[in-house]
Amino acid sequence: MFAPATKAGDAWTRMLGRRFDSASDIVVGDGDGRLYGLVSVERLLAADPGATLAELADRDPPVVAPGMDQEIAAWHAVQHGESSLAIVDPSGRFKGLVPRRRLLRVLLEEHDEDMARLGGYLRGSKAAGSAAEESIGRRFAHRMPWLLLGLLGAMMSAGIVASFEERLAANVALAFFLPGVVYMADAVGTQTEAVVVRGLSVGVSIRRLTRGESITGLIIGAAMALAFFPFALLYGDPRVALTAAVSLFAACSVASVLAMALPWALNRLGRDPAFGSGPLATVVQDLVSITVYLLTAMLIVT
Amino acid sequence: MFAPATKAGDAWTRMLGRRFDSASDIVVGDGDGRLYGLVSVERLLAADPGATLAELADRDPPVVAPGMDQEIAAWHAVQHGESSLAIVDPSGRFKGLVPRRRLLRVLLEEHDEDMARLGGYLRGSKAAGSAAEESIGRRFAHRMPWLLLGLLGAMMSAGIVASFEERLAANVALAFFLPGVVYMADAVGTQTEAVVVRGLSVGVSIRRLTRGESITGLIIGAAMALAFFPFALLYGDPRVALTAAVSLFAACSVASVLAMALPWALNRLGRDPAFGSGPLATVVQDLVSITVYLLTAMLIVT
Repeated sequence: MFAPATKAGDAWTRMLGRRFDSASDIVVGDGDGRLYGLVSVERLLAADPGATLAELADRDPPVVAPGMDQEIAAWHAVQHGESSLAIVDPSGRFKGLVPRRRLLRVLLEEHDEDMARLGGYLRGSKAAGSAAEESIGRRFAHRMPWLLLGLLGAMMSAGIVASFEERLAANVALAFFLPGVVYMADAVGTQTEAVVVRGLSVGVSIRRLTRGESITGLIIGAAMALAFFPFALLYGDPRVALTAAVSLFAACSVASVLAMALPWALNRLGRDPAFGSGPLATVVQDLVSITVYLLTAMLIVT
Repeated sequence: MFAPATKAGDAWTRMLGRRFDSASDIVVGDGDGRLYGLVSVERLLAADPGATLAELADRDPPVVAPGMDQEIAAWHAVQHGESSLAIVDPSGRFKGLVPRRRLLRVLLEEHDEDMARLGGYLRGSKAAGSAAEESIGRRFAHRMPWLLLGLLGAMMSAGIVASFEERLAANVALAFFLPGVVYMADAVGTQTEAVVVRGLSVGVSIRRLTRGESITGLIIGAAMALAFFPFALLYGDPRVALTAAVSLFAACSVASVLAMALPWALNRLGRDPAFGSGPLATVVQDLVSITVYLLTAMLIVT
């Protein structure tokens, strides 16, 4: 750490011959151990040797608190022109520097993790190159937990549909639209999840996310229902067509709320919100959509 | 670019007072414009002023050809200890340097793109922070293309199920297991997609991916079918239970093949393989799974 009054030329002389883990930015601090600012190596090179570090320093570098999530921290740094990241405790004391090169690795690891979770793996810390070359036994083992959850979900879905057996037997056309409604609600939910998971992992607050996504979900649900109704009428029974349209609206709306609630709840519990997307979310969404569809059928097809 | 015989101290003297876009690594080249190696700023700082750049240089820095995909290039750099990336044409001539700080932005953009495509957006170049704060009209517009594709898929699914109306009316229990089989095949496909998309985007060849994933798909399908059969028997008709189990095996196996074929085909066409995951893949998978289930029912439930 250099004092603000240090001349650029002197800073160079003192750095020469010393080993640094990274030399992308130099730290300028006052006597109390408080951060004054950062000077990038590019700026220091270009400077007049007589200029003081106080003149050269970026007084507003990206700063994070000691316990901050590394993905949010990396995001701050990139927003700030790929600078290094200063760690400063609540009392303003400088605690350390995350160099640019380290940020690169952090972002890459987070990318693999998010991708793996969306894809349905329990652990995401493996590099993609190695995940693609794992032994078959390991591939199987990595996927098993989510697949067992999925199997449980599939069994529950059979139970739910079976409990509406009489109604289905009386009007088999109800079975025609069930897969489509489940699929559409899932698609709407997945889109919302992508926004929410990404937003939460870079530090956007859930409140800012919720309103926009809820209204978007309602509009999409209404648009889908209106477009689907005339098509469903082609299959005859208008009550069944109405069931399809109403449940499409309801299931899409519920899906966008669920897609926000799961990552939010996980975030509150201190888990990675990305766990609330992918397989877990899909199982929950599908079971809810099936239930919404069949309850709607009960109300409309008497 | 410095000659290999340049002394470290002289290199510093010549760099001082000049402006660089990035000064993380300096380029050492021979007289012909061929790359000799890179010297990191950290290594140059720590060096004895009398040492030559030839002694300090990393002779084997990460190198890419001019037209290489930026995500694969960034991946190479990170694998190589977060160095800068040298661009060298086929004849060995040095064409330029991608500095570390630029790699950070590249990786972040690619991350957003992959996430957006898995999530079902047409374009992924928006930063996540802004995507989470878009107006409702823009949110709606960004999702519409995939949602319309989904609606078309939902209509086709209704058509397929309806064409098996007689058989469903004769044995309504067939409807119980359809959502579960569709869901499981989708889950298996999504996991394979995540491996394949990530593998292709960092340059793993499709051949290395195919064998492991195909066999994994078969094993998973068999395991799911064995686990599901006794459960399905609880609902009575053993032929329907057999339909569920056999079609679960078939649909999961087909799903893992489809999940490789779509990203591969897009990659061959020069498109981002990530487009082969997410909504497009799910629509295709679901329609195939429904068809597999109902055809299996035709063969087994006479």
